[in-house]
Amino acid sequence: MATTPRVTVWNEFRHERTEEKIRSVYPVGIHAAIAKPLREAGLTVRTATLDEPEHGLTETVLAETDVLTWWGHAAHAEVEDRIVDRVQQRVLDGMGLVVLHSGHFSKIFRRLMGTSCGLTWREIGEKERVWVVAPSHPVAAGLGEYFEIPHTEMYGEPFDVPAPDTLVFVNWYQGGEVFRGGCAYERGRGKIFYFSPGHETLPIYYQTEVQRVILNTVRWVAPLGWPATPVPSTRIKGGHRPEPLEPVRPA
Amino acid sequence: MATTPRVTVWNEFRHERTEEKIRSVYPVGIHAAIAKPLREAGLTVRTATLDEPEHGLTETVLAETDVLTWWGHAAHAEVEDRIVDRVQQRVLDGMGLVVLHSGHFSKIFRRLMGTSCGLTWREIGEKERVWVVAPSHPVAAGLGEYFEIPHTEMYGEPFDVPAPDTLVFVNWYQGGEVFRGGCAYERGRGKIFYFSPGHETLPIYYQTEVQRVILNTVRWVAPLGWPATPVPSTRIKGGHRPEPLEPVRPA
Amino acid sequence: MATTPRVTVWNEFRHERTEEKIRSVYPVGIHAAIAKPLREAGLTVRTATLDEPEHGLTETVLAETDVLTWWGHAAHAEVEDRIVDRVQQRVLDGMGLVVLHSGHFSKIFRRLMGTSCGLTWREIGEKERVWVVAPSHPVAAGLGEYFEIPHTEMYGEPFDVPAPDTLVFVNWYQGGEVFRGGCAYERGRGKIFYFSPGHETLPIYYQTEVQRVILNTVRWVAPLGWPATPVPSTRIKGGHRPEPLEPVRPA
Amino acid sequence: MATTPRVTVWNEFRHERTEEKIRSVYPVGIHAAIAKPLREAGLTVRTATLDEPEHGLTETVLAETDVLTWWGHAAHAEVEDRIVDRVQQRVLDGMGLVVLHSGHFSKIFRRLMGTSCGLTWREIGEKERVWVVAPSHPVAAGLGEYFEIPHTEMYGEPFDVPAPDTLVFVNWYQGGEVFRGGCAYERGRGKIFYFSPGHETLPIYYQTEVQRVILNTVRWVAPLGWPATPVPSTRIKGGHRPEPLEPVRPA
Repeated sequence: MATTPRVTVWNEFRHERTEEKIRSVYPVGIHAAIAKPLREAGLTVRTATLDEPEHGLTETVLAETDVLTWWGHAAHAEVEDRIVDRVQQRVLDGMGLVVLHSGHFSKIFRRLMGTSCGLTWREIGEKERVWVVAPSHPVAAGLGEYFEIPHTEMYGEPFDVPAPDTLVFVNWYQGGEVFRGGCAYERGRGKIFYFSPGHETLPIYYQTEVQRVILNTVRWVAPLGWPATPVPSTRIKGGHRPEPLEPVRPA
Repeated sequence: MATTPRVTVWNEFRHERTEEKIRSVYPVGIHAAIAKPLREAGLTVRTATLDEPEHGLTETVLAETDVLTWWGHAAHAEVEDRIVDRVQQRVLDGMGLVVLHSGHFSKIFRRLMGTSCGLTWREIGEKERVWVVAPSHPVAAGLGEYFEIPHTEMYGEPFDVPAPDTLVFVNWYQGGEVFRGGCAYERGRGKIFYFSPGHETLPIYYQTEVQRVILNTVRWVAPLGWPATPVPSTRIKGGHRPEPLEPVRPA
Repeated sequence: MATTPRVTVWNEFRHERTEEKIRSVYPVGIHAAIAKPLREAGLTVRTATLDEPEHGLTETVLAETDVLTWWGHAAHAEVEDRIVDRVQQRVLDGMGLVVLHSGHFSKIFRRLMGTSCGLTWREIGEKERVWVVAPSHPVAAGLGEYFEIPHTEMYGEPFDVPAPDTLVFVNWYQGGEVFRGGCAYERGRGKIFYFSPGHETLPIYYQTEVQRVILNTVRWVAPLGWPATPVPSTRIKGGHRPEPLEPVRPA
Repeated sequence: MATTPRVTVWNEFRHERTEEKIRSVYPVGIHAAIAKPLREAGLTVRTATLDEPEHGLTETVLAETDVLTWWGHAAHAEVEDRIVDRVQQRVLDGMGLVVLHSGHFSKIFRRLMGTSCGLTWREIGEKERVWVVAPSHPVAAGLGEYFEIPHTEMYGEPFDVPAPDTLVFVNWYQGGEVFRGGCAYERGRGKIFYFSPGHETLPIYYQTEVQRVILNTVRWVAPLGWPATPVPSTRIKGGHRPEPLEPVRPA
């Protein structure tokens, strides 16, 4: 039904360049680790990073993007508001968005959710177990009942997001917390998926199950069955319709 | 279970003062028409309007407000962003918010929804019939299967909002449209209800069923069972929790 | 991602054989009209009807069915409970189910919903307009904001079903009603879609938009990405797990 | 807004009479332990048990019941289908239903859910932590971010229920599982809440937080604002409406 989605993998790409501990895990950037398995699955993938002009997210790039994945952490505040406006509009017009890990605090995710997107966190390398609670959802395709991440950063409730349209994963942590770690949303004509695993100092994005989930999310948020260029935004924005569709009798 | 909620009825209050056609329907302002039946039901009600200092929504007023109702139309852009920030934070901390009619395009509603909140509209005074599709929801209490508004402004789909947590009303219009006219949301610790009927040139806010619904919405969004002052926002915002709740064994 | 789903189109197939008025519209049965455009889209389609042994829904047929579509009207009570049990189990194990029009009162739909599935109806051939309220949902793929059915049977609220996991269509009727005419559900590992248009005396199943929607529903409910044979039901049924996944310390 | 709900606390009441280990925890039955704090909160409470005529759930008793709580475990199969029919109809007509712990496998809960309601379980007395994920829901009123149950029976995912209309609690278990332990549903005119804690050999129903939650659930599922006797079921069941509400013009 769908043609192959064109993916743009966005990354803040700062601390991989400045912190040896992080560079040693993701030597050419987290975006490279995220992009590789998507390319191997046959998707058309480009990358973009914060320090490129317009953060690499020009009108042209976005017009050629069916799915955008987002990874940011330390420099959320440096993302320009006009670029956030642009990405938000594209999502409402039909572009898919996958928000990863610390992207929960990105401007674009907070903008689209309308809440603080706050959570609790802890960084002691404890064990995480990701449980599937919506087994019929495409994002869970190919998974068993759960998978484990041996060492993780804990993300815990309360997670201040709208109740997801579909809750797909709930995480268990050794230290005693739970977290709604896989949340599906529909906004305008676009789909959004938030997936919590993945930390800059841990090799989580090399783990098979995590790569499978990210591939699934990209396929699910892609505007399946719609033309590659979504219908003009005037369609969804509505507006004045002075003539009724049916005759209206005088009162 | 709940104490009586303290309500602040907010109104833009511009065109009632400048347009005779509107003044004749709402001579002392739409806020007065909305506030009256709430007071008669025993609620504690104050009003606030755009042209008051801080739009009448000072920190003190909001701290004493359990439920805020919002009516705006022509001057959404004049509401200051810092006041929108303040109201949003209060909602996330537990204050109820009732958004009425053209308030769908207010800054505060768009901020909390994350979408354009666009719709189609038509102003020819056609008939509207409001159908109850969630009969067990408190907002539908006391209503039959539907009620009618003899002359209305049409608001039609597509309505670019997140799918409501509960859809309570669906409107039928003589001219051929439908509209999700009663939408319940939960955001942070706060509840939000959008209710579409009500137009500045039509006496809709004097209609018994409409007044009953607004009273129901105020009661539903009120922080029932919570202390009058919601818990501090640090609770829901989460944060760093360096110590695990359970012992974490070395790997 | 998915292989082509194998579809079984089920039909009560009674009144097409006995009532001339109905035979003239669907001379070889409603199932034939539903199956034809699915075949033309490249799907593997078989049909089954009430008066076949086991209603045509043997263990073998169901084991080879990824998606079952259901049309019944006058003889719901004649469907054997053991066959209903079998279909329900298959849906919970991952088979997709598309319930059409008067199938709202079928045993299988009522079983899966847990409610009466009642509605109001009227058969005077009035106009219907089907509005899309979830434009990003795959079932709405290729549609505009709405489509019209020139002569229809009215189905109206209150519709006694659980709130759909996603509400995709809302119908407008000339006679004054609205109806949630496109409802998506997930139950166990299976997806279910209820689509209201289609009446035995009206040529609705020959209309292009209706055929497109049914094709979309079949594709959406198909167990995308899962193996053709869903995982064994023991997986989802859970059971006793005497050994903890993590060490439990004595209290 | 609401009058005090009349509650019927139903219990299977078998193993408290036959197993010393259970009798020692709940000497006069689990129903007594559940009823006591409800009475102390001022509610009107009666109890009913399996071995009474009609299981204590006569037409008269149900007609005088606003909220029914359900505890069963070993004898689900002994509940007569005609009583299940009766209770289901009352829920669809507006009576609230609170299903506790092993009641997940009761006929009435499975009937109303339409799924197997299966889960995994383990009985080694491990620790449970109940997290609030919907802080604005009335069922969470008065709770903090979480509460702990020192020794519990584990109930784990996959839990084969429809996605709740609102997910209120997610449980963490020491042994490595998570569970959607607080699930709110609306069916027909009735509200249903499933709450997982509570085991026959453990004093969980004497714990303050558990008692508070059960009180909250009873208040939430009560038909707030509706007359004590819900409207007749013909209202929600719909039916034939031969005359249109609006004039229908000839085609």
